[in-house]
Amino acid sequence: MERVYNFSAGPGALPLAVLEKAQKEMLAYGASGMCVMEMSHRSKAYLEIITEAEELLRGLMNIPDNYKVLFLQGGASLQFAMIPLNLGKNKKFDYVNTGQWSKKAISEAKKYGEVNVLASSEDKLFSYIPDLDPAKFNKDADYLHITLNNTIFGTRYRELPDTGDVPLVADWSSGILSEVIDVSKFGVIYAGAQKNIGPAGVCVVIIRDDLIGCAPVSVPTMLDYKIHAENDSMYNTPPTYGIYIAKLVFEWLKEQGGVPAIQKINEEKAALLYDCIDNSKIFKGTVDKKDRSLMNIPFVTNDDALDNKFIKEAEKAGLTNLRGYRTIGGMRASIYNATSLDGVKALVEFMRSFEKGL
Amino acid sequence: MERVYNFSAGPGALPLAVLEKAQKEMLAYGASGMCVMEMSHRSKAYLEIITEAEELLRGLMNIPDNYKVLFLQGGASLQFAMIPLNLGKNKKFDYVNTGQWSKKAISEAKKYGEVNVLASSEDKLFSYIPDLDPAKFNKDADYLHITLNNTIFGTRYRELPDTGDVPLVADWSSGILSEVIDVSKFGVIYAGAQKNIGPAGVCVVIIRDDLIGCAPVSVPTMLDYKIHAENDSMYNTPPTYGIYIAKLVFEWLKEQGGVPAIQKINEEKAALLYDCIDNSKIFKGTVDKKDRSLMNIPFVTNDDALDNKFIKEAEKAGLTNLRGYRTIGGMRASIYNATSLDGVKALVEFMRSFEKGL
Repeated sequence: MERVYNFSAGPGALPLAVLEKAQKEMLAYGASGMCVMEMSHRSKAYLEIITEAEELLRGLMNIPDNYKVLFLQGGASLQFAMIPLNLGKNKKFDYVNTGQWSKKAISEAKKYGEVNVLASSEDKLFSYIPDLDPAKFNKDADYLHITLNNTIFGTRYRELPDTGDVPLVADWSSGILSEVIDVSKFGVIYAGAQKNIGPAGVCVVIIRDDLIGCAPVSVPTMLDYKIHAENDSMYNTPPTYGIYIAKLVFEWLKEQGGVPAIQKINEEKAALLYDCIDNSKIFKGTVDKKDRSLMNIPFVTNDDALDNKFIKEAEKAGLTNLRGYRTIGGMRASIYNATSLDGVKALVEFMRSFEKGL
Repeated sequence: MERVYNFSAGPGALPLAVLEKAQKEMLAYGASGMCVMEMSHRSKAYLEIITEAEELLRGLMNIPDNYKVLFLQGGASLQFAMIPLNLGKNKKFDYVNTGQWSKKAISEAKKYGEVNVLASSEDKLFSYIPDLDPAKFNKDADYLHITLNNTIFGTRYRELPDTGDVPLVADWSSGILSEVIDVSKFGVIYAGAQKNIGPAGVCVVIIRDDLIGCAPVSVPTMLDYKIHAENDSMYNTPPTYGIYIAKLVFEWLKEQGGVPAIQKINEEKAALLYDCIDNSKIFKGTVDKKDRSLMNIPFVTNDDALDNKFIKEAEKAGLTNLRGYRTIGGMRASIYNATSLDGVKALVEFMRSFEKGL
């Protein structure tokens, strides 16, 4: 039962303590005599689980009372449609293009209104976060959408654009809970669970009250935030087991000292790895230093054969899922909250000895 | 770690053997060194899981080659919109109203076209399956929709309507895999997983090839069958762990002898319980005998205090989730595939001794 160090970009590693707890409770949760998967979502035992999950997340992110927390299905990909469908009063949307997921969000929004792409970093293979010119912001826009952390290209926003009265909407799938953020600066934050929250199949949406209830009747019921908000994410059967695992992850995170504490560890992990890259003669980072992600760290040797050799040998050493995304090649280490400092140390050690051994 | 007999209508009981296997594989699946939840959905190990899940389901249901099998999110509730959005060439839909889920499907379809309700059993609290008059079928309808098994009211179709060239579409959430059916008679069969397949958060859609690819561009990408079919349910991250559990359930079902064998057991289980009800002086069935469900068996005493006493004492005896749906009251025993014959015997024995003890 040996476990590897898993650098998967998502679904990604989960804390061992969470898996052990889930394992222990698999045949019978508490005094219920059944697995959480077997529970009616309307049962007292399950209502406690989902309520606690929400309360924990609210505490961890310091979510203000005028925001609803929704546990939905369909991942960030469904949010790409739900955002313009629900928020599109004027049918005018501002977007920033920082990579593949931004592009998908943009392409979906174009189905439902006029999209204004404020800036793009596509000219340099999305290796930086472009500066935004506030003069270009559309004052009539229903929202301004950013991808806060870019899983594939390894960039992240360090400063948020000041959008004034226009709600800021962020896809934070690969960064949520990794660092402290002021939720009140956003209209909507959404995140697929499969990186820092739990298993794939749960999507967390944190949405300011006043943005709920604006969907036209033609919107499918399941795509209307109002329906889910009014029913506390229980309009239909939610992904009950995924939410239970999310609750265990939130508990674990709280035990670690919450987001400020994990941020410190994340910064330490990222610094270790970036240092190693910056001091290497064979490995190179692909991202502008000022825009580097804490979570997804791409690096290359610019030699396909060498990349392959590295990935193969790392795999043998129990360091897995290090192959980079095909459009940039090379390697990528995703070091989400559940990736321990030890895991990153092992990777860095391996990189150094690999380089030495050449 | 005592397990109860769980008669929940959904999410419902899972086979103990499945939970034990999942428990064993929780920290490390095979030689992967990680939990299935932590696997990239594009990894070789995971691709094997989802491919095998589909192959097993195809084998179990004898699904013809000209049907796609999709593992989606959003439950049957999202299908209520996806069906008319994807199949609505003429925007004319025939529906049969046999209960709450039919009503929800009808109300969603009304957003996208003209709905013709062919028949309804609402006059008698949905206690029967209404006869259909083929003269009323709309020849221009895009499809005719039925709810094959009605979870709340405990009815099921014994014969399928002959819809000619009009595709028959069925919500089979609470009946799928419980008895042999000829898939080729349907245009689409869909089913939320949380009754006979696996955990909530997975929805299985079995759809004939020629019905795919007809959605207008305004349909959200995630609601377009074509996108999911072209990407083998991997357009975005699927609910990976739920599909893995579904695979284990399919394996288990195959080991039991497949659908013909489980149908025999299901018929035996249902007969035991209906016999007990029919021979009781206090318990009464609520459904026309010819239309009785194999899966969901409502029964009442017509005395609220007595119902409550029964439910409370049953709970104490380890027979749980027997409270009926609020609109019909009384009791309901959901006896899905995973509910063993022993479980039903225990319930019947308890019912008899409860009656005797009054």
